[in-house]
Amino acid sequence: MQGRAKTTRRFLLEAAAQLFDERGYAGTSISDISALSGRTSGAIYFHYTSKEKLALAVVEEHFATWPELVGRHRAAGVPALERLVALSLTVARAFRDDVVVRAGSRLWMERKAIDAPLPTPFVGWIETVTGLLEEAREDGSLAAGVVPEAAADGIVYAFFGLHTVSDALDGRERIEERLRGLWLLLLAALQAEPDPAALLDRVGLRSAAG
Amino acid sequence: MQGRAKTTRRFLLEAAAQLFDERGYAGTSISDISALSGRTSGAIYFHYTSKEKLALAVVEEHFATWPELVGRHRAAGVPALERLVALSLTVARAFRDDVVVRAGSRLWMERKAIDAPLPTPFVGWIETVTGLLEEAREDGSLAAGVVPEAAADGIVYAFFGLHTVSDALDGRERIEERLRGLWLLLLAALQAEPDPAALLDRVGLRSAAG
Repeated sequence: MQGRAKTTRRFLLEAAAQLFDERGYAGTSISDISALSGRTSGAIYFHYTSKEKLALAVVEEHFATWPELVGRHRAAGVPALERLVALSLTVARAFRDDVVVRAGSRLWMERKAIDAPLPTPFVGWIETVTGLLEEAREDGSLAAGVVPEAAADGIVYAFFGLHTVSDALDGRERIEERLRGLWLLLLAALQAEPDPAALLDRVGLRSAAG
Repeated sequence: MQGRAKTTRRFLLEAAAQLFDERGYAGTSISDISALSGRTSGAIYFHYTSKEKLALAVVEEHFATWPELVGRHRAAGVPALERLVALSLTVARAFRDDVVVRAGSRLWMERKAIDAPLPTPFVGWIETVTGLLEEAREDGSLAAGVVPEAAADGIVYAFFGLHTVSDALDGRERIEERLRGLWLLLLAALQAEPDPAALLDRVGLRSAAG
């Protein structure tokens, strides 16, 4: 794709994401996106064919955020559980601050109203978390009874639920504080020698007062 | 309300719930509900005024399920953590088997597309779980470091996420197995003397093989 077309597509995608995030799929029309972006509806259809395709592009862009971000937390030398917590903090911030991530998440929740097959989340996250727990087993920091695959499921449920609850109750404003509370609970089960608060401080996930 | 009107309202509510559960809010019309129930659209409007009001009634009926169900798990004599797990199992089964609960949950997820204010979940559940953890503190079965209010938040996140993930990945078919896996993780953090498998067996939340 040529540079200018790519820039226009990205510009339209972000305008659409802003509206999908605020109003949802059913509440957003191509003419709303036209009004916000200052481009004609014809231009939007030229780049994305339909509202379904545009929604699909937002969800795919949301999904495309993660591999690079997961890669950044592969740094050797840092214990695996710390990297897991740091990753969850980066993801929580992306959900709070990145309109494409937020819109993609909302569209996925509304997926049954969208006439386009959307990718399924969770599976990739469960694999990523399983891998980090296996590393924690190797570096000796995982509690004896923990089975990485099974615990990874639970962590992904909790993390996903955290986002939904935080979105519903405080518009994600308190997400870091809530994330800290969640890890205080989970790390008590995961760490071979439980000291959740110290680990959270090392990662920089501090309490609201801090 | 007279008996017959009440029966008709319930009948229409269940027909609507079946369609909202399968097709979502935007995908369901009053005439679909008319076709499924064999009642005229006029009769449906007579009882519920609008599709929004009907959706709101389904969500309210979903919410009304819980107090009675929570009440059943107040039985004295059973340790509080066992009652908490048993309650979560009853709720998981309701989500799997009760079409009004499932439809209410889906409508709530699609809430921004519905032009009626829906009640907010979570708050009541967080209070219920906090209460049970406080009882566990009193009966001596809660681990020393656990703060009931904070842990209750995490449990509610995890439980809510479990439902979303199970719905997305296996249509809730594996929800009991997933619930068992989740409690194996959480109870390791919650129990003063961790022995999650024994507690889960006592409650009757068995592994898939069992």
